Amino acid sequence: MRYEISDLYVGQTAEFTKTISESDVYLFAGITGAQNPMQVNDVYAKQTRYGERIVHGMLSSSLISTVIGTQLPGNGTIYVRQNIQFKAPVFFGDTISAVVEVTDIFLEKNRVQLRTYCKNQHGEIVLDGFASVIPPKLSRL
Amino acid sequence: MRYEISDLYVGQTAEFTKTISESDVYLFAGITGAQNPMQVNDVYAKQTRYGERIVHGMLSSSLISTVIGTQLPGNGTIYVRQNIQFKAPVFFGDTISAVVEVTDIFLEKNRVQLRTYCKNQHGEIVLDGFASVIPPKLSRL
Amino acid sequence: MRYEISDLYVGQTAEFTKTISESDVYLFAGITGAQNPMQVNDVYAKQTRYGERIVHGMLSSSLISTVIGTQLPGNGTIYVRQNIQFKAPVFFGDTISAVVEVTDIFLEKNRVQLRTYCKNQHGEIVLDGFASVIPPKLSRL
Amino acid sequence: MRYEISDLYVGQTAEFTKTISESDVYLFAGITGAQNPMQVNDVYAKQTRYGERIVHGMLSSSLISTVIGTQLPGNGTIYVRQNIQFKAPVFFGDTISAVVEVTDIFLEKNRVQLRTYCKNQHGEIVLDGFASVIPPKLSRL
Repeated sequence: MRYEISDLYVGQTAEFTKTISESDVYLFAGITGAQNPMQVNDVYAKQTRYGERIVHGMLSSSLISTVIGTQLPGNGTIYVRQNIQFKAPVFFGDTISAVVEVTDIFLEKNRVQLRTYCKNQHGEIVLDGFASVIPPKLSRL
Repeated sequence: MRYEISDLYVGQTAEFTKTISESDVYLFAGITGAQNPMQVNDVYAKQTRYGERIVHGMLSSSLISTVIGTQLPGNGTIYVRQNIQFKAPVFFGDTISAVVEVTDIFLEKNRVQLRTYCKNQHGEIVLDGFASVIPPKLSRL
Repeated sequence: MRYEISDLYVGQTAEFTKTISESDVYLFAGITGAQNPMQVNDVYAKQTRYGERIVHGMLSSSLISTVIGTQLPGNGTIYVRQNIQFKAPVFFGDTISAVVEVTDIFLEKNRVQLRTYCKNQHGEIVLDGFASVIPPKLSRL
Repeated sequence: MRYEISDLYVGQTAEFTKTISESDVYLFAGITGAQNPMQVNDVYAKQTRYGERIVHGMLSSSLISTVIGTQLPGNGTIYVRQNIQFKAPVFFGDTISAVVEVTDIFLEKNRVQLRTYCKNQHGEIVLDGFASVIPPKLSRL
């Protein structure tokens, strides 16, 4: 799916939802090298105020780029900027929805501003922020 | 490794370097669902202006969180905010260094501001930004 | 982190701790080809004296090489010898600490002997042994 | 495949051969946390005397346990001891054969001694050692 800037409108939304598994977190730790005890040491995590292992913040954040790159605006979008505020922990087994909403369209600059956030299965916002992107041109790959 | 706020100083840096493999990108696509043609379709990517598949911006960005969580300030750091500006593409096989530098220390709020960027093997900055974090307290897990 | 031989002392220790997940074991089976029923067949494993699937001994052992290569002596160490005695089973979900301790330093040969063992979350030693390594020279990469 | 002690003879051999891919090494680094520059930083590795990234010694060693656990003596074998001497580096793309040979049979103790080594596609021995194992009893799972 892909939208040119002229096909986008303020308020348009898209989302992607996934239950984050232990294997997701472990592979993410492997790819990035982030073998933090909060993510991979259950005994340590039990002694912290969270009481259990939590998901890397950047893993949940990455689901936003999934929505941007595959749905809104979709394939061929150029990612310019992403701002993220981490609000609440994500636990193993949580079901996270990454939501993207068009908030501003700058036609002459071919630039779009998006609100980007993730919420868990209880509707709680776990991270919030915005992105700035260049939507694809259909004449261009 | 971990530093309390009183052990940090402005100008302190740490980095983590990794050659990004095709398998890193493919696993990252699998974990996040971001199966974009620019990342996983070589035939498509060859026809674009980049001429080959490129790495997810959020994968490179995630190396920053590795440095923050394992080195500076290290284990137990709470991630508050991350801003990222994407500057240049990262190609499969590029060797990316994620660099974190302390730029501001707010002792009374126990908050630290970090410049965070990634550069490739040619020294070119591929993404730039800053993070705000709460360093660990050694009395706390 | 890395230590030259002159920075090491007898009794120096380092460790790395990780909760071993099912996905760790399954990926390890995939990489090595060791698709043993004790590791990947839950029905079979339930009928054995262990009553459940257990982790490959060589997976736990490999955490020792993580400590040697990343902490003590660290990056650039050359691995000469590793002896391992398997003492007790490791179960999925166990939290394993790999511990390395300097036991002998042979300055003229630039060789160091290490005791190397892994213990589980109950403090039980699951494997024990020793390693012989050549520490990095800081003048050398 | 599995052999009881009475079915084994001195000189009996088995082997498993695999071309070690970059993705094998990267996943192994992820599972174990051993993100050493010699394994995952191509720019660094080029400057060392090896001239390129090399495979974790414990990854090659693990192929030995594959032969023991799946072929000789096979399923149900209990691993008692493994000694390894690292002889030569293994490079990405090398084809490694892990070879196991029965060298001693202790019938009354139900214990078998094995020579265990790995060689590359040029026939060069990259690691050598021996293992001590308890073969399966066919009456037992």
